[in-house]
Amino acid sequence: MRYNHDTPMADPERIVASYLIETPLPVEKAAAALAGEQSSGTFVAVPGETEELKQRFAARVERITERETVNTPSLPGSRGGGTFHRAEVVVSWSVENMGFNLPTLVSTVQGNLYELSQFSGLKLMDLEVPSSFAQRFRGPKFGITGCRALTGVQNRPLIGTIIKPSIGLSPDETAELVSRLVEAGIDFIKDDELMADPPHSPFDRRVEAVMRVINAHAECTGKKVMYAFNISDELDAMLRHYEKVVQSGGTGAMISLNSVGLAAVKKVCDIGVLAIHGHRNGWGMLNRHPLLGIDFRAYQKIWRLAGVDQIHVNGIANKFWESDDSVVHSIESCLEPFLGGFAILPVVSSGQWGGQAPETYRRTKTVDLLYMAGGGIMAHPDGPAAGVRSLQKWWEAAVEGLTMEQAVGKYPELRKSMEKFGG
Amino acid sequence: MRYNHDTPMADPERIVASYLIETPLPVEKAAAALAGEQSSGTFVAVPGETEELKQRFAARVERITERETVNTPSLPGSRGGGTFHRAEVVVSWSVENMGFNLPTLVSTVQGNLYELSQFSGLKLMDLEVPSSFAQRFRGPKFGITGCRALTGVQNRPLIGTIIKPSIGLSPDETAELVSRLVEAGIDFIKDDELMADPPHSPFDRRVEAVMRVINAHAECTGKKVMYAFNISDELDAMLRHYEKVVQSGGTGAMISLNSVGLAAVKKVCDIGVLAIHGHRNGWGMLNRHPLLGIDFRAYQKIWRLAGVDQIHVNGIANKFWESDDSVVHSIESCLEPFLGGFAILPVVSSGQWGGQAPETYRRTKTVDLLYMAGGGIMAHPDGPAAGVRSLQKWWEAAVEGLTMEQAVGKYPELRKSMEKFGG
Repeated sequence: MRYNHDTPMADPERIVASYLIETPLPVEKAAAALAGEQSSGTFVAVPGETEELKQRFAARVERITERETVNTPSLPGSRGGGTFHRAEVVVSWSVENMGFNLPTLVSTVQGNLYELSQFSGLKLMDLEVPSSFAQRFRGPKFGITGCRALTGVQNRPLIGTIIKPSIGLSPDETAELVSRLVEAGIDFIKDDELMADPPHSPFDRRVEAVMRVINAHAECTGKKVMYAFNISDELDAMLRHYEKVVQSGGTGAMISLNSVGLAAVKKVCDIGVLAIHGHRNGWGMLNRHPLLGIDFRAYQKIWRLAGVDQIHVNGIANKFWESDDSVVHSIESCLEPFLGGFAILPVVSSGQWGGQAPETYRRTKTVDLLYMAGGGIMAHPDGPAAGVRSLQKWWEAAVEGLTMEQAVGKYPELRKSMEKFGG
Repeated sequence: MRYNHDTPMADPERIVASYLIETPLPVEKAAAALAGEQSSGTFVAVPGETEELKQRFAARVERITERETVNTPSLPGSRGGGTFHRAEVVVSWSVENMGFNLPTLVSTVQGNLYELSQFSGLKLMDLEVPSSFAQRFRGPKFGITGCRALTGVQNRPLIGTIIKPSIGLSPDETAELVSRLVEAGIDFIKDDELMADPPHSPFDRRVEAVMRVINAHAECTGKKVMYAFNISDELDAMLRHYEKVVQSGGTGAMISLNSVGLAAVKKVCDIGVLAIHGHRNGWGMLNRHPLLGIDFRAYQKIWRLAGVDQIHVNGIANKFWESDDSVVHSIESCLEPFLGGFAILPVVSSGQWGGQAPETYRRTKTVDLLYMAGGGIMAHPDGPAAGVRSLQKWWEAAVEGLTMEQAVGKYPELRKSMEKFGG
């Protein structure tokens, strides 16, 4: 469906964005500056800025909820008084302002806002789009159901791993590892984000070597392991890589979302033949500061609109900086329906070895996850096969409601992973 | 030139990245973690990670320069002691790790680094690539010389403006404004980043209406004004928009770099028929915190590799949060040769009205700028034509070495802009 260019929408639907802000100004004044900058902003009134035009296109401050006041600004460069007020601010725009244009939607709800001296902190927390977006955007082609169908996994998380070392293996060495992993019963394997198409592991050769193993295993067992080949590259190369995976019988491809960018990711997702594994490396830059950037709830919606099928959410007790609360929030965000569906599969990873399964399940009550372990599988004392079995068993125990200690008590085979990784 | 996939590079060239870091750990240990994560990282040693492989692919810490120690971490989530050490750290990678692949280069030098709990602050400050990149990447097709040739402007900054109000004008209303601006002698006009292809100003109609005016003016006067139409959109739409501009006789297009993303921007730049105006909206998210994100020096190099011809740098005494020192640093970064050239035209904007020209010139000693004023032209007391003349005169005065006050003394016609905007 395309909108009609000739007639303005009769009753324009609205985009709604929620922000956490910090400002030295009265909160109402700062919110008005935010809305002004992102709909008709210049620093003086200009001819042509009629009242009618303003009414039709102005962003609207819908709601302000004041929070605490602090004495130190979170970010430099704000202009105004000595105390800084925090608030949640909800702003809306008519879809008429940008039409159905994802990059311009992003420029509208984020864009220059982070530059405004009226703020000493600003984070986009959530984003709502009108239901008309569901006609215009397909969303994830595969999502949770599709990824389960492609891998033949039901009623438990997909168990996945990353090829390590992340960089340096030849295609044949990679395929040899893949061979051990598929025999161990893994559901999903991915390239590292550092491994795309380097001279020592050319993309096409790697696909050929890996898919030979995966296809042979699928013929014997009926189980086709999903391998997310890292197609991240310039656009034409990505499209070539994608085609190579399709021709070789693959079912998945991985993209570094932030490095590749929205327009090219959307273009690749639109093809709709491979499940797209969205790697969010670079995410810390956009989110680690509590009053700058974008919250995961808003972030993952943008990628669901683009059509990404799987997205990283970090993991409980991860090796990175992120708190468990934040990880749980991210998993929940992915599992919330968006536009009546648009399901996306959360990818749990970072320092995972299975022992985090009980806490992950206790807090999220879901098995709709792709649960990834790198070292947790490859460095298992009894080898990768035992690593995979151990992860499956940890998840059985988790769904039974056992704690980590109870799980090891009931299933002695978990003891080795506990001793190796649980210290 | 393509590298040979069959033989590893004999003497691998290296990518060099400089960081400002803050860490609760001894700085050497944190630097080693950085290098490890981005070349062979997992949280335990894995089989296959041989010494030979490590030697060939490991990132190398080249230099550490310790700086101050602070008592409060800049970012949450770091693990370790009570004091936080700042340092400049230089790290290098063999090009063999990623080949010539811009998105994967970005994933390597940024990527997961911001997530590491070893850091309470991390900012990518600079990036150097080997000279082989100059064979593989064309860089900006037009750059400074090309944009001067397209607009016929020598020995002074290009004077530009933004169509305001940013949102809401119809194509005919836009064209009417353009008509007044080209008659006033403007060199460059751009759409606002909020204005792309909305229902009330469909892209094709706007191009037709605007180019009718610009082409007619060019036929009469020989001067073709560059209009940077905002083509930001999904990829296929961007390519259609680009073609429409070319067919209509236009010379420029604008892209919101961060919203569109690297792979699609590169794809558009590769066409090489239009000068590409790079709008950096969203930039504050990547840079405003002093110890998070990316410095402009590194940022603009990535876009020069992609082939962007013009890039925003904010302006002296701007309406945003950025300091003059930072703006000067950004202008200087653009004017430094990169890969022996790859020149990019710095775009000065935000609250500019001409009175900042003396200070801009005093501090940068360059006229290789696209100097943009929105309200500063459109809201000039004597109308847009007087606004344009005033900007040109301000720059004459600046190059003469006059201060703002001296300029108004010598050129009384500057008084009106001073009175309107200089308060």
